[in-house]
Amino acid sequence: MNNISIKIISQTDVAEIFKGNTKALFGVVENAFMKYLHGNVLFPDKISQIFDQETQNRINCMPATLLGEDMVCGMKWVSVFPTNASKGIQNVTGVMLLSEIKTGFPVAVIDGTLVTKMRTSSVGCVAAKYLAPTKVETIGIIGSGEEARMHFALLKHLFPTIKECRVSSRSSSSEEAFIAKFKDLTTDVNFIACDNDSYKCASNADIIVTAISGQAPVLKAKDITKGGLYIHVGGWEDEFEVALKAQKIVCDDWEASKHRTQTICRMYKEGIIKDHDIYANLSDLISGKKKGRNNDDEFIYFNSVGLSYIDLNFANYIYKEAIKRGLGKEVVIAEDNSVDYASLIY
Amino acid sequence: MNNISIKIISQTDVAEIFKGNTKALFGVVENAFMKYLHGNVLFPDKISQIFDQETQNRINCMPATLLGEDMVCGMKWVSVFPTNASKGIQNVTGVMLLSEIKTGFPVAVIDGTLVTKMRTSSVGCVAAKYLAPTKVETIGIIGSGEEARMHFALLKHLFPTIKECRVSSRSSSSEEAFIAKFKDLTTDVNFIACDNDSYKCASNADIIVTAISGQAPVLKAKDITKGGLYIHVGGWEDEFEVALKAQKIVCDDWEASKHRTQTICRMYKEGIIKDHDIYANLSDLISGKKKGRNNDDEFIYFNSVGLSYIDLNFANYIYKEAIKRGLGKEVVIAEDNSVDYASLIY
Repeated sequence: MNNISIKIISQTDVAEIFKGNTKALFGVVENAFMKYLHGNVLFPDKISQIFDQETQNRINCMPATLLGEDMVCGMKWVSVFPTNASKGIQNVTGVMLLSEIKTGFPVAVIDGTLVTKMRTSSVGCVAAKYLAPTKVETIGIIGSGEEARMHFALLKHLFPTIKECRVSSRSSSSEEAFIAKFKDLTTDVNFIACDNDSYKCASNADIIVTAISGQAPVLKAKDITKGGLYIHVGGWEDEFEVALKAQKIVCDDWEASKHRTQTICRMYKEGIIKDHDIYANLSDLISGKKKGRNNDDEFIYFNSVGLSYIDLNFANYIYKEAIKRGLGKEVVIAEDNSVDYASLIY
Repeated sequence: MNNISIKIISQTDVAEIFKGNTKALFGVVENAFMKYLHGNVLFPDKISQIFDQETQNRINCMPATLLGEDMVCGMKWVSVFPTNASKGIQNVTGVMLLSEIKTGFPVAVIDGTLVTKMRTSSVGCVAAKYLAPTKVETIGIIGSGEEARMHFALLKHLFPTIKECRVSSRSSSSEEAFIAKFKDLTTDVNFIACDNDSYKCASNADIIVTAISGQAPVLKAKDITKGGLYIHVGGWEDEFEVALKAQKIVCDDWEASKHRTQTICRMYKEGIIKDHDIYANLSDLISGKKKGRNNDDEFIYFNSVGLSYIDLNFANYIYKEAIKRGLGKEVVIAEDNSVDYASLIY
């Protein structure tokens, strides 16, 4: 045996790989769905270990495999700790593990925090490519944290026509912090702090995003006043009537979602929506099997639950790029030695 | 945010921690069972991703949590690649991930290959503490690989009275390799190469171990000729009649085993044995809830499936020892930086 070493790829390395390369982000997402459509993906149910029912502090374990030409198996290990917020510590922390499956050896450990944010917003953007109305000028974002910011940044990149961004959050200081982050960066956008008023934020918007960690129906049906796209990122953050108002409900993957706890999954469990109420999975739109939007009057609801094979496709891409670019730090995890049986016996 | 760093603890570090410290090995196992008995363990079902039904090449993902005073969550990621054997590459390769669950941050990545071997044989030894006959002089081992060797080394440590060790394997060269490994180390033991003859190996032995990766009933009921302990390590390696001959069947954890593919699990699925045929879990013996062996005439069958929380207890112990001893290499996985939104937008 030779040494087995793993490449440690940090958040800075990951950021470097995607710097100025938003196309790669969207590409990795679309490519993951194509691999799934070609039957080259294994993705077992994620395992959620909840440490405290009250706080919902938990770690999710999301394994997947890419067969075909990739031949990698990996896992994202992501903690979600709502109690971190009051300590000023990040809520979501991730790390990813990648193995090749010719010999089964581990090859890399990769920061999964930035990937989690990037992939969620990238999935939202890929959905928007197919589902946004013709002209996207106004965007309403409920939530002001990292996930909300990533969505704005990527959506603005995808739709340079955005000229108004409304932000609504529980505290006006966090609305201001969001705006401060971007106002010198995107000078062609008029930012509006909505003072936690969902109607002010969402009404008449071309795209609405809810990216909050709370479990309360903040977005109301009355806030939806015209055709557009609603990107639902979190858990339970909109009234049931919002989805009922939609002409189409599209998911990243309905089968993988239906037993979870997001709004439309709750509605499914309560019998309010049925399987046939789901218009399509995102992969159906990417493959061309189904048409996205028919006209600008449609209000379309997009729900993403987060799919392990998209994370894995990111890990695979990042690993290959890190090798190409000489990024990451190689560390030996198992030396070329044999067990010292003598030390175990005597 | 500060940097998030993880400690990389290699196989050499792990070996260093347990060097000359077999007591610690057994202690970590017994302690894990006690934590389980005290209700301080979460252990979801392991996830097995099988890449090829024919070869059974696979990666198992084994997450668990220790609550109580430990407050850690972790996972062993272990590949089992039967096709490696013909390439002269190790069959089993593991890596473990450990997170603290106060903030959910990852803290360590630890070699899991040595731990896998050590913990399996340690579980066998702990079982033997409670289930072996009064005098252990003769041991019959079917299999000659690393797992077989670890069992011999630890059992010889536990029972210095062992004076005969018989080894049976498909090739006589691997029987000889096993013997060569130990004959100068344990000069008080008479080693016998059995030339793949299970009767020669197992008959009249005080302890029998099967540690092979094949899926065929190599150990026959006729090979069991007297009271003793049989430690079943692998998959399906003994005739159904072996278990039927046993006065007691003991498991590391029957509930966690019954839907797997080991011999007694196959028998369960075929209705040949029922829940009430299982005498005890190992934790029942450790806690004193049930008695181990009644007399030396009993033939006792011990089955271990491998429990994620034992691996996690190892990871936790190794991490703490590594800190104490200054072992391992600290690597930053997420730097104290913020996302460069500008690079994502323009």
